[in-house]
Amino acid sequence: MKIHNQHYRTIWRDADTVCIIDQTQLPFALVIGRLQTHIQMCHAIRSMQVRGAPLIGAAAAYGMVLGCQQQADDQTLQSVAKQLMATRPTAVNLAWAVQRMLQQLLVIPVAQRAQAAWAFAQTIADEDVVQNMAIGQHGLGLIAAVVTADPDRAVNILTHCNAGWLATVDGGTALAPIYAAHDAGLQVHVWVDETRPRNQGASLTAWELAQHGVPHTVISDNAGGHLMQHGQVDMVIVGADRVTHNGDVCNKIGTYLKALAAYDQRVPFYAAVPTPTIDWQLAQGAAIEIEMRDADEVAYMQGQDEDGQLRRVRVIPHESQALNPAFDVTPARLVTGIITERGVYRPEQLQLAQSNAMEHAQ
Amino acid sequence: MKIHNQHYRTIWRDADTVCIIDQTQLPFALVIGRLQTHIQMCHAIRSMQVRGAPLIGAAAAYGMVLGCQQQADDQTLQSVAKQLMATRPTAVNLAWAVQRMLQQLLVIPVAQRAQAAWAFAQTIADEDVVQNMAIGQHGLGLIAAVVTADPDRAVNILTHCNAGWLATVDGGTALAPIYAAHDAGLQVHVWVDETRPRNQGASLTAWELAQHGVPHTVISDNAGGHLMQHGQVDMVIVGADRVTHNGDVCNKIGTYLKALAAYDQRVPFYAAVPTPTIDWQLAQGAAIEIEMRDADEVAYMQGQDEDGQLRRVRVIPHESQALNPAFDVTPARLVTGIITERGVYRPEQLQLAQSNAMEHAQ
Repeated sequence: MKIHNQHYRTIWRDADTVCIIDQTQLPFALVIGRLQTHIQMCHAIRSMQVRGAPLIGAAAAYGMVLGCQQQADDQTLQSVAKQLMATRPTAVNLAWAVQRMLQQLLVIPVAQRAQAAWAFAQTIADEDVVQNMAIGQHGLGLIAAVVTADPDRAVNILTHCNAGWLATVDGGTALAPIYAAHDAGLQVHVWVDETRPRNQGASLTAWELAQHGVPHTVISDNAGGHLMQHGQVDMVIVGADRVTHNGDVCNKIGTYLKALAAYDQRVPFYAAVPTPTIDWQLAQGAAIEIEMRDADEVAYMQGQDEDGQLRRVRVIPHESQALNPAFDVTPARLVTGIITERGVYRPEQLQLAQSNAMEHAQ
Repeated sequence: MKIHNQHYRTIWRDADTVCIIDQTQLPFALVIGRLQTHIQMCHAIRSMQVRGAPLIGAAAAYGMVLGCQQQADDQTLQSVAKQLMATRPTAVNLAWAVQRMLQQLLVIPVAQRAQAAWAFAQTIADEDVVQNMAIGQHGLGLIAAVVTADPDRAVNILTHCNAGWLATVDGGTALAPIYAAHDAGLQVHVWVDETRPRNQGASLTAWELAQHGVPHTVISDNAGGHLMQHGQVDMVIVGADRVTHNGDVCNKIGTYLKALAAYDQRVPFYAAVPTPTIDWQLAQGAAIEIEMRDADEVAYMQGQDEDGQLRRVRVIPHESQALNPAFDVTPARLVTGIITERGVYRPEQLQLAQSNAMEHAQ
């Protein structure tokens, strides 16, 4: 996607380094990070300089490349893989990408691994972009159907957290259908959940929608249910960090609350994910490990002060504790559909996406 | 309640002035405001230096006193009443207290009005305290029932926004049962919703619970549903700005989302209100005017910087808009009970609270 009319991906190769957009500095500064070691990549993932399930998959793949560049024997690669997988526990893409890199690398001679690793990681990144384009087209159909019902007004879509192009290599997942609709000339307006504690909605989703010229309004995480009660939301589209075999959707904390409101108010609720985000091994979301992040993310808030500097302020009393579960699980019964690169599936038919993939692979 | 072991109310008379705790400065500084005119009181209510449905009722009553002190003829009092009622539209207590003051004042000679007004306002304030003590006792029974089921662990109670003593003249509404339980030696632990955009949970509820020594943990507004899914919430108790005849609960934005999660997870959901918060004229919550507050409350966040100064930081891109509905309505079907000073009522039996009052008045 474009920043000030220049095309960017969120992660790319530059000579022997991996470049990333440091997302902890957005929306107020565009800072490019240059990573030379897998240790630096582990830090970038853990500190959420890169984040979003599809992007941390690609980032982990590039982390394997950086590891390879330093030393490419089996034992080292296994160790690098382990370190990368330990950075964040919830998203399935991370382990998926690391395992795929490992399988591909271990079967070729050590001397060729570094060069091959660049190509393998590039493929993972490119596949993500292609998948997201397809998600956009499948989701576009859902938005266009609402437009047909009332052509005179914008379609109001609520999203939570950031599942835009910043959460992927490029194109976005939940925002891909929105960009596709906007680019096709449909009137869309996005309600952007702030998404405390890390504010990825207010800082990232709002920023990338503004860059692309998509009308949007930031709301507190508390407001979405009220807007649905008053007919101001036509559909909800979120991303996911992991979707289980039965259609349970693990996504940013607070997604479950929006899904409940959507169900209560008969607003369609979609999760948009590339199929690598689907965990075919897990039958139910209850089995997913939910990452507990640092309580300081709740106790402090980061923003821009009057001098234009990024600054952290404390928002809870010094005597008080905080707890910071990072994800929740929305049960499949509340989910209208899963938008994948292979089509839109009702949760109970999600296994068809796997069958399609197997046919495709044969 | 006590601050550093000294007893305070949130509002009190000092000679010819009204003193308030400036709640926009908490939890990091205890600042007492001295108000001499009803214009200053209007500003204090609008800027939320005083807030919370019961407290703004009392504050408006004292605002009438300050108006009386300057000029006490009928026309002036009507004008003062109108200005006070225009400060905030959603809470019923404000109009209730102003109308009651007006009715009492207009029937006595102009020269006696100022002195009488102090007494009338004091009565409204004292009644609030007595009501809240009774709410605490009725709610204590509900908490004690959970303790009986499993005496070895703390009862986990989730609350949203601040309906503690800071929201009242003293004692609190939603927190009154919690203080009563804690003081009775029961183990309670409170999940405190941050309550964006103004953070009354993180800044006020956490602060007053800490002052009183009640164990508590601040969570983002997004986390409550997840905690309920994992059995970590035994009951939800919130306050309300207005409860309608049929039991619909109008409270701080986001309450509806927590009520949905509680209903979905079979967690009892209570609203604690003194009966003046019940609007017997309104049959349904859909008719309540929902205050739209300044979008800057969403765009900025206030907290304490590293130098101990209160500072506002911007948390959304400069190109983005925000919307800030301040309240939502939780339909009665999601409400387990309304805790009043007269007892606990199921929503469909709420009119019994009115009958009891009428009997009481006869």
